[in-house]
Amino acid sequence: MTDLHDLVGHRDVARILDWLADEHDDHRVSEELVRLPHVERAIVFRLLGKDRALSVFEKLDPSQQAELIEGLRTEEVADLLERIDPDDRAHLLDELPAKVAKRLLAGVSPEERNRTTLLMGYGPSTTGRIMTPEFVTARASETAASALQRIRRAGVDAETIYAVWVLDDERRLLGVVSLKTLVLAQPDDRVRDLMDTDVTTASTDEDQEATARRIQDHDLLAIPVLDRERRLVGIVTFDDAMDVLEEEDTEDIARLGASEPLDRPYLGSSVALLARKRAVWLLVLIVAATLTINVLQYFEETLETVITLALFIPLLIDTGGNAGSQASTVLVRAMAVGEVRFADLPGIVWREARVGVVLGAMLAAIGFVPVWTFFGWEIAVVVCLTLVTICTWATFVGALMPLVARRIGIDPAVVSAPIITTFVDATGLLIYFSIARITLGI
Amino acid sequence: MTDLHDLVGHRDVARILDWLADEHDDHRVSEELVRLPHVERAIVFRLLGKDRALSVFEKLDPSQQAELIEGLRTEEVADLLERIDPDDRAHLLDELPAKVAKRLLAGVSPEERNRTTLLMGYGPSTTGRIMTPEFVTARASETAASALQRIRRAGVDAETIYAVWVLDDERRLLGVVSLKTLVLAQPDDRVRDLMDTDVTTASTDEDQEATARRIQDHDLLAIPVLDRERRLVGIVTFDDAMDVLEEEDTEDIARLGASEPLDRPYLGSSVALLARKRAVWLLVLIVAATLTINVLQYFEETLETVITLALFIPLLIDTGGNAGSQASTVLVRAMAVGEVRFADLPGIVWREARVGVVLGAMLAAIGFVPVWTFFGWEIAVVVCLTLVTICTWATFVGALMPLVARRIGIDPAVVSAPIITTFVDATGLLIYFSIARITLGI
Repeated sequence: MTDLHDLVGHRDVARILDWLADEHDDHRVSEELVRLPHVERAIVFRLLGKDRALSVFEKLDPSQQAELIEGLRTEEVADLLERIDPDDRAHLLDELPAKVAKRLLAGVSPEERNRTTLLMGYGPSTTGRIMTPEFVTARASETAASALQRIRRAGVDAETIYAVWVLDDERRLLGVVSLKTLVLAQPDDRVRDLMDTDVTTASTDEDQEATARRIQDHDLLAIPVLDRERRLVGIVTFDDAMDVLEEEDTEDIARLGASEPLDRPYLGSSVALLARKRAVWLLVLIVAATLTINVLQYFEETLETVITLALFIPLLIDTGGNAGSQASTVLVRAMAVGEVRFADLPGIVWREARVGVVLGAMLAAIGFVPVWTFFGWEIAVVVCLTLVTICTWATFVGALMPLVARRIGIDPAVVSAPIITTFVDATGLLIYFSIARITLGI
Repeated sequence: MTDLHDLVGHRDVARILDWLADEHDDHRVSEELVRLPHVERAIVFRLLGKDRALSVFEKLDPSQQAELIEGLRTEEVADLLERIDPDDRAHLLDELPAKVAKRLLAGVSPEERNRTTLLMGYGPSTTGRIMTPEFVTARASETAASALQRIRRAGVDAETIYAVWVLDDERRLLGVVSLKTLVLAQPDDRVRDLMDTDVTTASTDEDQEATARRIQDHDLLAIPVLDRERRLVGIVTFDDAMDVLEEEDTEDIARLGASEPLDRPYLGSSVALLARKRAVWLLVLIVAATLTINVLQYFEETLETVITLALFIPLLIDTGGNAGSQASTVLVRAMAVGEVRFADLPGIVWREARVGVVLGAMLAAIGFVPVWTFFGWEIAVVVCLTLVTICTWATFVGALMPLVARRIGIDPAVVSAPIITTFVDATGLLIYFSIARITLGI
């Protein structure tokens, strides 16, 4: 049998995996493990897979466990994981057992938390990235007085002691009891009778925003974060949830305004950074807007015949853009706060189309007489018919696009107001000149 | 001397105020007060002014106090206050003494809170409207054990017992001690030594959003709300703050998208409601957009001479609108989260103008060759000069308008993306055709 030490020296992930698959004795693996230098040890440990990692971890003695955890936390391991081949990384970043995860996260500063959670196999923007392992627990069988005693001992380091999590021997969550309940209870009341078993939970691989919205919707102080086996690995507190929501809202607002969010405060951003965050969008949009040149070129003859048509171009495309933005921003927000799902699409599109007709008809009714007075009834008919059609079309597109974007995995805010406006401009001109040609007979 | 009973019968606010000014004996006032029917009693009490109200209130015996509070809470009094002459209302709605305010709010359901706080003289969107009087207090001189004992008695009704407010005899705030600290402390530690005297506070007449942002920025569980004399009248908890922020962000996003926020969930809104929330903005914007017709009419001759100029109208005004929206949405957000103030205006405008030049120059550099190839160098010069000028102008306007709006008391989100786009469209056309006339010599 090849020596594990040699394989690791070559960073040959496939063959290490083979070696681990052939070696069924976890005790032997743990022995080989401690012989490796600490970076290599971390790699092999991360390649074990979740269940086996726990079994191997438990065969190490406490000082070896501490050494392994220490090794997993070093910058070299983090760097290595960042540089490694993406296929190999998938093997390396399977979820860690809850027991190891908690130890790994303990005492990590908020600044280091991001690096450590990356290492633990939690993807970007997942709840695993923002959870803290500093919580307090109780046993179902103990009394309120004993639970309070335990909290007094453990509480100083905990992020919050106001929610006390009740766990079984396997770290599975049985319920939650608030510090308020414990303080107000009789000392000999049992935790079992005080705890609330209907706990709102989050999971490590869930999107941060979804977890934060749940904290907000249920007015929670903290939410427990469970791994795939429903074991408690961390909590997210309300203040971190507020920060996540503020950041998400800032991102949405930036994208609704056709730029990428700044990653630092506005006043601390340089001219170069501000320009960079906007340049790509501005460029994408102007390239898209060249479509309007093509449309107008196609109708150049019509335009030369009735130059008056040109006068209404900005007004009509602005109105279309506004009607589209109205629909899309309302929907982007409704999706962000979780009010609307893809399944609601047919109902929404039908509803929005009717809203568009109503708005277009209103504008046409108000505009008809003034346009007739100044530009004659033919232009008035063309402009007013266009208003109804453009408003309906823009509202329809504005409602449809964010929902479709979410479905195909794009942030709905990205395809919102500015992109819809540009798209509606080009198609709106097509509508306008088609109606003009038919109505004016040119 | 006229009888107070008669004056009140006529609802003659001016003469009641005179009577109260002439009558210096608060004991006499309290005696007259209890002789009045309860609606009238409430009116006279609300006309007393803050200091005197407290003095008169304290001269009533406990059952009379309870009766007065009961009377202040009735729907008739609330209706009366809604219907009353605005000038008289200012007298009626002076802030209530903290002691009376707390009693008035106690036991009020969240649904009734809004009505009750209106009655207490707190304006719309102020912190007074969302505070709750259900908090727990401690004395600086007592021990941790005694404070915990007090919390056990009072805690069941409190909204949160995790922040314990330390007050002096006059209800002035001395500090705060967390339940965590009390639980972890030695039983005979003094609250005085445990409390934190550096308390972040809010005031009753402060804007709700400002208070909510402060809760978020300081990661607070609850913030104490003080009246003009710095007496504690209520608290706002983090969950209410999260709701306020979500609502404010929804409002900003709706306005950035040119509509008014919905006051109910999207799926629960009818076509008529959706249309109504958008109709006014759409109408305002289309009326503003008629400016573009005037500008184009003014340049109609130029347009007829060089019809090619028409082809670039949508592209140029879209780009101006996008550049303006980028600047304004970023600033609206920076103001909402409290990063930017009016005093920063000169720096911001100067910075944004430079960002605009950079972006415009970039677009012009990229666009010059394609436009030259298809439309000749003269059009290319006009279009590219216009791009630089419009981007600079739009970014400048987009940065300026939200700040000025806030200064004159308008929600910055209202003047953002859509209004700026429309304004930049009209002025952009002016820029475009002026450059064309000069460059092409027509």
